[in-house]
Amino acid sequence: MSDLVVGPECLPEIEFWFEFGSNYSYLSVMRIEEEARKHNVQFVWKPFLLGPILQSFGAHPFKQEQKGAYVHSDMARLCRKYGLSPWVKPSVFPRLGVLPLRVVLLASDQPWMAAFCRKVMELNFVHDQDINQPGSIAPILIELGLPAEDILNQAQSEPVKAGLRTQTEMARDKGIFGAPTFFVGNEMFWGNDRLDDALLFASEQKM
Amino acid sequence: MSDLVVGPECLPEIEFWFEFGSNYSYLSVMRIEEEARKHNVQFVWKPFLLGPILQSFGAHPFKQEQKGAYVHSDMARLCRKYGLSPWVKPSVFPRLGVLPLRVVLLASDQPWMAAFCRKVMELNFVHDQDINQPGSIAPILIELGLPAEDILNQAQSEPVKAGLRTQTEMARDKGIFGAPTFFVGNEMFWGNDRLDDALLFASEQKM
Repeated sequence: MSDLVVGPECLPEIEFWFEFGSNYSYLSVMRIEEEARKHNVQFVWKPFLLGPILQSFGAHPFKQEQKGAYVHSDMARLCRKYGLSPWVKPSVFPRLGVLPLRVVLLASDQPWMAAFCRKVMELNFVHDQDINQPGSIAPILIELGLPAEDILNQAQSEPVKAGLRTQTEMARDKGIFGAPTFFVGNEMFWGNDRLDDALLFASEQKM
Repeated sequence: MSDLVVGPECLPEIEFWFEFGSNYSYLSVMRIEEEARKHNVQFVWKPFLLGPILQSFGAHPFKQEQKGAYVHSDMARLCRKYGLSPWVKPSVFPRLGVLPLRVVLLASDQPWMAAFCRKVMELNFVHDQDINQPGSIAPILIELGLPAEDILNQAQSEPVKAGLRTQTEMARDKGIFGAPTFFVGNEMFWGNDRLDDALLFASEQKM
């Protein structure tokens, strides 16, 4: 007897390093579940904090005014291209999303993770609302039928807080300088613009 | 009697703002002639100097070491993807290409312009050679059957020198902060990564 069902543990993996404050991460979060199915790959959720990494370079996103203006017209076009809700420029940018990143770290292998991340991203980039308070995140968890209070308590425990700091150090050690960043093995792909190339590269890998 | 031949003056236009020192401009230069044919659009060559614009922002390309390292692996992959010669990291980066940019400004509407730009880019990014001396540029013009000495003399005349400075000011006024940048009317597309979107946008424009 042979097992013809290929379990997800057998699919090529793409690490998805992202952060909820990042607008180009938003685009990828909204796309990857469907892309994973189409390309027969699986994504591994790797939340990290981009702020400390950029600060260590002395860089700041969109410090340069003209680039910042361009990014908003680029986002408007890309939202149309991907069939997302019309682009809303967040009134706070970049928004801190430490709390939901801790939830992702705590439960990165859970089947509800893609849906959770999409809803957090929509809170920031469609509804222009705070994403860093238990009062913002609990309704999302409840809507997904999850024990919100338990999850938020665990997400704010010391080991998870330390874990996110460690994962941010790992991101820096891997050479990450922006979000989203994809890894297929040691091959790094920076930006939503390279998601298609990362998918192609992953699906060509021998298992 | 009707004229069924659509002249190039009737095709939708894409302004192509570029500079010979820019590696992502290299990719676009190598692609655009074929893309223009495929999409039935025409490119308008817009040479400018990126250096003064970046300096006015206090920015420098690849100042950030990890991003610089990534860009080279990205270029290697993209050269493979577009079927170009294997990527060679230039020993001088970014190379000054003021002289050939002046040639482009002088003769931007000439039919040999696409071939000239490809050869200058290959000198920089395939053969890793200086592109800013008459001794580098004359052989390219001669190979194209052109009066090299005349062209180089004109390119180094005061009006053309001033013209390139003026065009660089225009680039800054248009909100350009990197190269390549494409314009379809007022719609700006930054980077070789947006060439496909610019082509699509241009070919959807009513003439």
